[in-house]
Amino acid sequence: ELHHTCQWGTGERWGEQGTETGMRRLSLSDADKQARDWFVDATKALGCNISVDAMGNTFAVRPGRAQGAPTFAGSHLDTQPSGGRYDGILGILAGVEMLRVLQENRVETAFPIGVVNWTNEEGARFPISMMSSGVWAGDIPIGHAYALQEVGGGTATVKSELERIGYLGILPASYEAMPMAAHFELHIEQGPILEKEEQKIGIVKGVQAYRWYTVEVIGQEAHTGTTPFGSRADALLAASRMICASHTAAADHGALASTGILTLSPGSVNTIPGKVKFSLDIRAPSDNIIDKLEKHLKSDFDSIVSTESTKALPLSVTWQTDSISPAIHFHKDCIAAVRASANSVLGDEALSREMVSGAGHDSVYASRRCPTSMIFVPSRDGISHNPKEYTSPGDCAIGAEVLLQSVLRYDGL
Amino acid sequence: ELHHTCQWGTGERWGEQGTETGMRRLSLSDADKQARDWFVDATKALGCNISVDAMGNTFAVRPGRAQGAPTFAGSHLDTQPSGGRYDGILGILAGVEMLRVLQENRVETAFPIGVVNWTNEEGARFPISMMSSGVWAGDIPIGHAYALQEVGGGTATVKSELERIGYLGILPASYEAMPMAAHFELHIEQGPILEKEEQKIGIVKGVQAYRWYTVEVIGQEAHTGTTPFGSRADALLAASRMICASHTAAADHGALASTGILTLSPGSVNTIPGKVKFSLDIRAPSDNIIDKLEKHLKSDFDSIVSTESTKALPLSVTWQTDSISPAIHFHKDCIAAVRASANSVLGDEALSREMVSGAGHDSVYASRRCPTSMIFVPSRDGISHNPKEYTSPGDCAIGAEVLLQSVLRYDGL
Ligand SMILES: NC(=O)NCCC(=O)O
Ligand SMILES: NC(=O)NCCC(=O)O
Repeated sequence: ELHHTCQWGTGERWGEQGTETGMRRLSLSDADKQARDWFVDATKALGCNISVDAMGNTFAVRPGRAQGAPTFAGSHLDTQPSGGRYDGILGILAGVEMLRVLQENRVETAFPIGVVNWTNEEGARFPISMMSSGVWAGDIPIGHAYALQEVGGGTATVKSELERIGYLGILPASYEAMPMAAHFELHIEQGPILEKEEQKIGIVKGVQAYRWYTVEVIGQEAHTGTTPFGSRADALLAASRMICASHTAAADHGALASTGILTLSPGSVNTIPGKVKFSLDIRAPSDNIIDKLEKHLKSDFDSIVSTESTKALPLSVTWQTDSISPAIHFHKDCIAAVRASANSVLGDEALSREMVSGAGHDSVYASRRCPTSMIFVPSRDGISHNPKEYTSPGDCAIGAEVLLQSVLRYDGL
Repeated sequence: ELHHTCQWGTGERWGEQGTETGMRRLSLSDADKQARDWFVDATKALGCNISVDAMGNTFAVRPGRAQGAPTFAGSHLDTQPSGGRYDGILGILAGVEMLRVLQENRVETAFPIGVVNWTNEEGARFPISMMSSGVWAGDIPIGHAYALQEVGGGTATVKSELERIGYLGILPASYEAMPMAAHFELHIEQGPILEKEEQKIGIVKGVQAYRWYTVEVIGQEAHTGTTPFGSRADALLAASRMICASHTAAADHGALASTGILTLSPGSVNTIPGKVKFSLDIRAPSDNIIDKLEKHLKSDFDSIVSTESTKALPLSVTWQTDSISPAIHFHKDCIAAVRASANSVLGDEALSREMVSGAGHDSVYASRRCPTSMIFVPSRDGISHNPKEYTSPGDCAIGAEVLLQSVLRYDGL
């Protein structure tokens, strides 16, 4: 069924088999709308009530014996522009499978059980990751999210696209309007550890801190053939030095730094770029390290700008902070539910391990408003955000069983 | 009249005055067509016969007493995406002014006199500079020029755009079909020397060598949050190191290196770029230095690729040579004609100087098939390929007078 849903937004082919393609299902695109429609139809058919909130977050809720806040399985159906078939998708599909098992076996839960598809987890088309779980948690102002424009110079905004695909719901996007008893998320590890250690389940205790910035360098447009090095204010040369410096500094701090987007103007072979904008994504185990690294980079970039600046033609650099995701520690009850479920499914404690997530997930924001934990399954070669992302059917099934049991365990609590 | 023609393709405003804007008149655009139509009408009205060749090069020829190859003033009406009002435009407008002076004063020349507007000198939209003088000279194959695609991912080609704007002429684009007795070109200096030395005319003896390349770096897309530095093949980090290295190496060789275009994919904040393409423009006084610098850079880029490559994930780099413009030495008779004319107009040898052009010009290719020289006038602050490019009306007039006299002197020879 996971592969069936990958017909909407199929990406780059990398192998011969029918399912050996990546995904390109950018948030709020036509393909995303088709996947959402499938989610609504599938969960309705399993006896759920559907609510769509003002961010397009879609909640499918199966009633329990008593009314009250549901325990949710959640993740996302959007992907990177050259993403794979598992990141986010597996979590939703396993949630639907959970609903099917409950329904086919006429399981009555104490309280309602739900599955939520969060809007724009990836932050790829609209550059804030975990955007709509962030609005739900009250951490990202809805006006800010609505106004976000797509990367690459298009004019579409989050709000205009929500309207266009018919997912601008009437329920307020808020933990008060849609409270959760707990949030569990099955996800691929996106890293190499489980595979290397030959383990099947990661019991996720938390998520590392990260921040996203847009850095803009302003220099001066000039002729590449007539302008000596000493008379230039080359915005791209300065930006290149910054990208190199960000890697050195991050390595020194035991952190990560990455640039995934870079645009320049005017964009002509024989004109020195007068303006460059690039994204900067920094990550570290603690907020403290992130603070230090940010400081370090601001000072590094300032010295690059002053070293590269000629007296006549100054360069300048400005930083815009696009998003802040602090280091997160999940809830002990949820972690315990995942651990117990992993042991029950695997029958051997050595086959699971505790870990910290390198990537952000909607569980980051969920955890600010309800007990939360995550379940990781192995990623082949640790590869993610790449069409070749792969997790075997057997490993997906184990993850789905652990998700089902964790949700039921928590409902029992 | 120069400013009148700047209504077609007006660019960025930088000052309050009516003429204080730059230009954006990309080759074979609608604005370029309008400027071309003006050129045809203006020169027809001055008694010229018009021929358009298969590259859209447009020749306006005023008959002389005897038939034979005309002496031409030539330059170009296309501009950079954020160019100014003088680069190329001044040369054409001074040519039209020359025709007007000849016509109003009923001057009979020994042989025909012409003005030529060459297509796509800038190489900004279609990335080969001096493209159509290169085809005329037999140095660039017409099929290669026709097939060039616009930068930035559009699908328009030189041929499709020539057809679309109605400038795909029937005359073969060749020095045999349209022979020239000589080619003179008035141009702004685009550098700081004349202004600094308080001189009015540059007598251009030649043009430095340059080459353009497209460099492609292939790495592997991966998640910015879950992929440790040691497991990355970051195409943008490698490209940044190459851009920094190209500057260091060029400085060591007394040469220039510049990158004006850089594109990457997939272009998402949290995906490490798997592919980067960038332009590289290197220039030096001699072909020998260019050869050495190219070798040096190829070896530098190879070491960057191998240093950045992890065993599991190799990076690779490939070079494509887009254009080669060897160092050029202009013809002594034309240089002498410019020198004599400058002295006659300025009345003081100290007000002119010999110089070598840092930028390429259509005179580079013209010089391969007929005696050629150029006339430079001062550029304020040496600024070019920038909306703020400026040469005073007085300096433009001096340049136009020297152009007129040089052409008449050569016709006399
Ligand atoms: N899991 C995942 O890829 N989330 C996107 C947010 C991030 O960049 O970590
Ligand atoms: N004069 C001028 O800007 N020509 C464009 C070709 C070059 O890049 O030198």
